[in-house]
Amino acid sequence: MSSSPAIKLRVFSLNCWGIRYLSKLCQERFEMIGDLLMKEKHDVVLLQEVWSEKDYLFLKSKLSKSHLYSHYFKSGVIGSGLCVFSRYRILDTFLYRYSVNGYPHMVYHGDWFGGKSVALAIMNIQEVVFHVYVTHLHAEYCREKDQYLPHRVVQAWELAQFIRHTAKTADVVILGGDLNMHPNDLGNRLLRSYTGLRDSFLETETFEGYNGGATLHPENCFSSKCELQPFPNGIRIDYILYKASVGFVVRCERLMTTKGNAPEKNIPYSDHEALTVTIHVRNTTNEDSYLEDLDPELVNVLNEAQMEVKVGINMAEKHRYSSGRMGVLGLVLFLLEVAIALVSFLTTAAEKSFPKLSFYLLGSLAFAVLLVMGILHVFYTVEVRTLQGTVDQMRLAAQQGGAPASLHHL
Amino acid sequence: MSSSPAIKLRVFSLNCWGIRYLSKLCQERFEMIGDLLMKEKHDVVLLQEVWSEKDYLFLKSKLSKSHLYSHYFKSGVIGSGLCVFSRYRILDTFLYRYSVNGYPHMVYHGDWFGGKSVALAIMNIQEVVFHVYVTHLHAEYCREKDQYLPHRVVQAWELAQFIRHTAKTADVVILGGDLNMHPNDLGNRLLRSYTGLRDSFLETETFEGYNGGATLHPENCFSSKCELQPFPNGIRIDYILYKASVGFVVRCERLMTTKGNAPEKNIPYSDHEALTVTIHVRNTTNEDSYLEDLDPELVNVLNEAQMEVKVGINMAEKHRYSSGRMGVLGLVLFLLEVAIALVSFLTTAAEKSFPKLSFYLLGSLAFAVLLVMGILHVFYTVEVRTLQGTVDQMRLAAQQGGAPASLHHL
Repeated sequence: MSSSPAIKLRVFSLNCWGIRYLSKLCQERFEMIGDLLMKEKHDVVLLQEVWSEKDYLFLKSKLSKSHLYSHYFKSGVIGSGLCVFSRYRILDTFLYRYSVNGYPHMVYHGDWFGGKSVALAIMNIQEVVFHVYVTHLHAEYCREKDQYLPHRVVQAWELAQFIRHTAKTADVVILGGDLNMHPNDLGNRLLRSYTGLRDSFLETETFEGYNGGATLHPENCFSSKCELQPFPNGIRIDYILYKASVGFVVRCERLMTTKGNAPEKNIPYSDHEALTVTIHVRNTTNEDSYLEDLDPELVNVLNEAQMEVKVGINMAEKHRYSSGRMGVLGLVLFLLEVAIALVSFLTTAAEKSFPKLSFYLLGSLAFAVLLVMGILHVFYTVEVRTLQGTVDQMRLAAQQGGAPASLHHL
Repeated sequence: MSSSPAIKLRVFSLNCWGIRYLSKLCQERFEMIGDLLMKEKHDVVLLQEVWSEKDYLFLKSKLSKSHLYSHYFKSGVIGSGLCVFSRYRILDTFLYRYSVNGYPHMVYHGDWFGGKSVALAIMNIQEVVFHVYVTHLHAEYCREKDQYLPHRVVQAWELAQFIRHTAKTADVVILGGDLNMHPNDLGNRLLRSYTGLRDSFLETETFEGYNGGATLHPENCFSSKCELQPFPNGIRIDYILYKASVGFVVRCERLMTTKGNAPEKNIPYSDHEALTVTIHVRNTTNEDSYLEDLDPELVNVLNEAQMEVKVGINMAEKHRYSSGRMGVLGLVLFLLEVAIALVSFLTTAAEKSFPKLSFYLLGSLAFAVLLVMGILHVFYTVEVRTLQGTVDQMRLAAQQGGAPASLHHL
């Protein structure tokens, strides 16, 4: 029994693949994205991988009439890549930067340099408080041997924790973004069962897009054919999730994803497909609304997640040990070289007893090894401690039967 | 008009100065702290600078009967140093690591290596939901020329944001810790006016301790005499703050701080004084409770904070420019050296035309400069972006007249 008219909301989410000078046809695609948003006038637009502030400012000026409000979230070396455009006033924002996010020395993977985060924007639409989250988790580069899996599980856990702790007074929670996880991956199950968020793809009344809701598809000319080889029908890694608190009901009327090339163009908007969801939020009497049942699977998922993070701790400890050992070797070699050099410098007789260039090159190498391994050792120490901290938190949650008191508020 | 009996709660907070091998008489002091806590049986104990997990585990085993519940928060290279002991079950925890926290190359200041954070522990005491926060902000090393001021203001801002966003369903909020700020410092005013937290020192009915509530005092034999020279009566930088939400009233009956040496001992517990506060939480009818008035000063404080953070941005941009310039110089010199070395290697005739040792030392130096300046450049870039992000958030808050909708929930 509805007590007030429903609010209809159209939410858009896209990973824009906006790495200037590296992503193909970046400028052209941002113009296409701007045109699309201006024409479609979605209520809320959640963008990821807008790495350059210039591209954000371009969109902001282009959407100055259709979307009066926007926020660009800065974090990390090249930003978080996240931004929100909205037809409704953004009342408040908050950013949480994930505590682990790959490795700085994996320069070719690059995730570490983007300060991967989850961003919150709070809006009040017709007296209903919306907490809108946008995020982008660490990429999966090799599914068979995924060295980043523990990092992604920790990010999924922190995402769930952040939403649970900050959305307690929200009437409606919406999360959009590139989770870099397949629908049934551990992190995804953890996120859904711990927050109670529902997957619009599973809930929608009508769906338009690729079979299975794929958002990375071989038909998209920018997608990595090699990465998608085991998945000829594509994979679904971009999501719009939602939930309502007591007193509200959300109905997902329609989910639409783009399919490769943009209409009347010969290129797609991005290497990911864009999602557009139409939801109806209805105020209900208390009898009509439901109290979220706690997912009975939650404790199992929490235990599984702890196991995975512990694998990550083992790996990080091994890396820390190796880097420490290499650092010590570098130090010993460097000190030895310095000693020999000093002797040769003081006793000129020894001048010709060893080759010069190779000797000094070795010295430089030893010094570089010492420095780099020292930094890596510190880095892995941080990783070990962060992962340990996460396991502690997960253990606490599992002890509570996955039902901390605070969850009941959501 | 009270509708149920008041809850009496004793909360303890201490910066333990627990840097193993560096802090004086560390082990002895932790034993004294353990004895005190076991004897006093405070309801909630908030400790900072418990850098070694061994010290935490020592306290945990010592307090296994008096304080059944505890949590140690891990973060950063040597941890966050934060832990909570409680007589009541800790239902849930969450940790937020500040996005800026000094510089890694300021090794002798060391703050960067501790992952300075704010930790949240949620407890349900007699059906009243307590959100208990403990934190430790970046130290102030030189009040006259405080290069860390923008970092501390950003930390105070993030602390306030974290509390506002996570405490919306709390009945009572308690924050304890070493804020490293004098009572009227900008960050402190920002924190108090943005969250509505009240300072127990200003609210308490009875107070025992040094005049002015000093928690760093020259009489404490571990305190830095040099740092306290301009303040012969000590300074107050450790706090217990609190607030109640609608429907509850908190009365602060007593605040007590230690005064130097522990009873019957010839040393104090730490270089900081410990705080013990006794509060009474009372459930009230709605008419009786008060809605927090928004601090009319908030917009001014927000503007002042923006100015300060902008000073920080200028400073970080200058540092970034200098490190970039030095890095380029290092690169040019290094390439030059490599070129000369190659020429001298290929044409043995040139062998004796320049001195060997100094040449190669210069090469190593150039390489080291290149490497270190490269890393610093990345670091300063992160700092600039983080500070810019903070200014954006502060501007948004000031535009809302300092009263984002979500604040009303607290």
